[in-house]
Amino acid sequence: MSETSFGYLTQETLPLFTDLYELRMMQAYHAQDHIPRATFSLFVRDLPPNRGYMIAAGLEQAVHYVETLSFGDRALEFLAEQDFDEAFLSWLADFEFTGEIRALPEGTPVFPNEPLLEVTAPIQEAQLLETALINQVGYQSLIATKASRMRDVIDREGDGQRLVDFGSRRAHGTDAGMKAARAAYVGGFDATSNVAAGEAFGIPVSGTMAHSWVQSFEYERDAFETFVDEYGSESVLLIDTYDTVRGAEVANAIAERKDVDLRGVRLDSGDLAALSKAVDEVIPEVDQFISSGMDEYAIHEFFDRGGVGAGFGPGTALVTSTDAPKVEGVYKLVAVERDGEMQPTMKLSKGKVTYPGAKSVRRIESDGEYAGDVLGLRGESGPGEEQLVTVIEDGDRVYEIPGLDEIRETARKKRRKLPERHRRIEDPAPYDVRISDGLQAETDDLRSTLEARISE
Amino acid sequence: MSETSFGYLTQETLPLFTDLYELRMMQAYHAQDHIPRATFSLFVRDLPPNRGYMIAAGLEQAVHYVETLSFGDRALEFLAEQDFDEAFLSWLADFEFTGEIRALPEGTPVFPNEPLLEVTAPIQEAQLLETALINQVGYQSLIATKASRMRDVIDREGDGQRLVDFGSRRAHGTDAGMKAARAAYVGGFDATSNVAAGEAFGIPVSGTMAHSWVQSFEYERDAFETFVDEYGSESVLLIDTYDTVRGAEVANAIAERKDVDLRGVRLDSGDLAALSKAVDEVIPEVDQFISSGMDEYAIHEFFDRGGVGAGFGPGTALVTSTDAPKVEGVYKLVAVERDGEMQPTMKLSKGKVTYPGAKSVRRIESDGEYAGDVLGLRGESGPGEEQLVTVIEDGDRVYEIPGLDEIRETARKKRRKLPERHRRIEDPAPYDVRISDGLQAETDDLRSTLEARISE
Repeated sequence: MSETSFGYLTQETLPLFTDLYELRMMQAYHAQDHIPRATFSLFVRDLPPNRGYMIAAGLEQAVHYVETLSFGDRALEFLAEQDFDEAFLSWLADFEFTGEIRALPEGTPVFPNEPLLEVTAPIQEAQLLETALINQVGYQSLIATKASRMRDVIDREGDGQRLVDFGSRRAHGTDAGMKAARAAYVGGFDATSNVAAGEAFGIPVSGTMAHSWVQSFEYERDAFETFVDEYGSESVLLIDTYDTVRGAEVANAIAERKDVDLRGVRLDSGDLAALSKAVDEVIPEVDQFISSGMDEYAIHEFFDRGGVGAGFGPGTALVTSTDAPKVEGVYKLVAVERDGEMQPTMKLSKGKVTYPGAKSVRRIESDGEYAGDVLGLRGESGPGEEQLVTVIEDGDRVYEIPGLDEIRETARKKRRKLPERHRRIEDPAPYDVRISDGLQAETDDLRSTLEARISE
Repeated sequence: MSETSFGYLTQETLPLFTDLYELRMMQAYHAQDHIPRATFSLFVRDLPPNRGYMIAAGLEQAVHYVETLSFGDRALEFLAEQDFDEAFLSWLADFEFTGEIRALPEGTPVFPNEPLLEVTAPIQEAQLLETALINQVGYQSLIATKASRMRDVIDREGDGQRLVDFGSRRAHGTDAGMKAARAAYVGGFDATSNVAAGEAFGIPVSGTMAHSWVQSFEYERDAFETFVDEYGSESVLLIDTYDTVRGAEVANAIAERKDVDLRGVRLDSGDLAALSKAVDEVIPEVDQFISSGMDEYAIHEFFDRGGVGAGFGPGTALVTSTDAPKVEGVYKLVAVERDGEMQPTMKLSKGKVTYPGAKSVRRIESDGEYAGDVLGLRGESGPGEEQLVTVIEDGDRVYEIPGLDEIRETARKKRRKLPERHRRIEDPAPYDVRISDGLQAETDDLRSTLEARISE
């Protein structure tokens, strides 16, 4: 059984993480000598339900993918078996990305139709990247957004509670477990329970105990005592295995007997707000850590009902973004070289229209808050600050990805610049993204031209 | 930037894909010399909404994980930085799984509380596996189920239409893209667009063309003609870039001019049922391939409205299981060695009660259909056929995982044995899982004992 049977990719097979049609189109572009320069824009048409914004994330991984992308023997041999021809395979063997990538820095709020990434390159090269780039940027942005909403609820209603990602076991595969930990940190989480994510991304790791620890002893008190013997004042005891309030009493008795200040207790079932208040009566000086079903809605309700907690451990709802599990990132051809010039292009597909041309995203601030964006044509002048930065130019990196803590701080600052009405966890007010006059005129002109052709 | 910065794991860091608390408990089990033999059961408490069954999948990857799990220098060095002690790290350096795993074979329908996997081993070893096993088996089972529902709708209402996984770009990370392709195949899909999944799992790969191909030419007819020049009768032309029916006419004209029988056309937007009928008027002899928003509900509606299609390309809704994106697999201690004997154990946590003891799952057939299951204690006799097989014994593999085509055929046969009322895509009838008398008595006894202790 090969290494990939676990289902993850290696650097060797990563170039094959693409849809077959990309390679089939690439071969045809190549064979038919139709290799115009092209600009593809990666964006979402709509925000997921109840989202007033998304947080861009995943650029670091996207860029790393592009920079290291190359086809070795194993990939080429498999493609040969799939009937790709020798001329194309020999071109692929020398593949490296020679184009340009512009992007929104990670941590930046993003709105519909605004490019998260824009790739300009010979069309073969740009085409290849579609599947992996959407995959990278889409999922991390989805989770950074979910995390940001939880941190935002705590900022408004809480008291700086810790947020720890507990989701790896319920993530959609191992890569999602890793990426969710990273993206949650970008969105404002403090730590992850996933040790591998700690190793890979330098995120603090955190963990308590499971019910199995408690059950592995005949009596809960023995379980607690043995754990405290091992970890002393670092112990966080899980108190809900049999009866939460009784568990708090047992924890308290052990702590007193051993003369240890417990780091905390964890509650993982039942009416968490009510139980946390009852536990607070028993052990008011001990931090309570709340898990099970936690997300922005549950945290809001917990605060609303007067729950007492020093931290939350969102899991499934975080890593699957359960209330909005999909974000339909698209990667659309918006400009293509014809007769030596880049020409805007769009499709007219029902409900899937795109704005043509390479873009600019200008963000207007007023009194320290974001007042609206202008989505325009690249190079168009106007008010506001350009949000897209050039990351790769002529195949070379020209932008240094900030460290994860800096990205997290950027996300925090920028989130707070968004007026609160756009940050509501239900029915947020839509943020204003104005289409520039230039882009609107370009869109209208091109639409007329294309529609006229249909009826030709 | 290290290899893992793309966020996927290597064999070196895979052992760290676990929650910190597992390792912290392991260290404490070790240091406190509390290492009873233990049985953990991996199951779901509830089926996701609208599911009358799930299809077990992911065992091959789960077993491969267990068999190859070992801690090398990189993993151990990171754990040393996390303050794990030397004695424990040196035990970890020699780690290999020595226990037993029983499991439902892949492709088997599974119901609430029935073990997908059951692990019996010294508690340290069994504890370590929790996070990765739930992750592996949970996601693949979720997607195999989603795929099975689509195949089932086609079996009942369609005409053997092809199902091709188009979801990699929208999957939650790259591993999900890979696993979704595999699990969809188990559930009854025919192919995937993901080339890497084709390479890793031997699944047929399939692909057409994107809008970018069409838009990269000034005229749609040039785009179609150039593609047909390259791929001849293998061409599947995407006809909805500007106007679907007009696109069909253009495709038809090119095919006639080039004297080629097109392999098909693809429709990717608009009112797909209505458009497919209109396209069928223009090119009745050409296969139509339908994508955009496809899942079991959309396929049912498509058939219901008289849509004409030879195949479907589900993407986002498949790989994120959008209507039910989470399956809360749990891994619970059900038995633990005390005084040299395995004793059943359970927790009483509100809404999270587990049945104690190692289990048997017996499935009763009547007239070639499944008539109900009995969830009992391991070794308990009774009617029906035991579904759990021993996969690993004393650390050695004793069960050969069937090839993917055989698993897929198993899934198909077993799905058809489920009475149709359990397979409805909305409000399916609950399948009968009876708790055996032995298990019920054990549960009641243990509950009494534990409840009595709380009020002691």
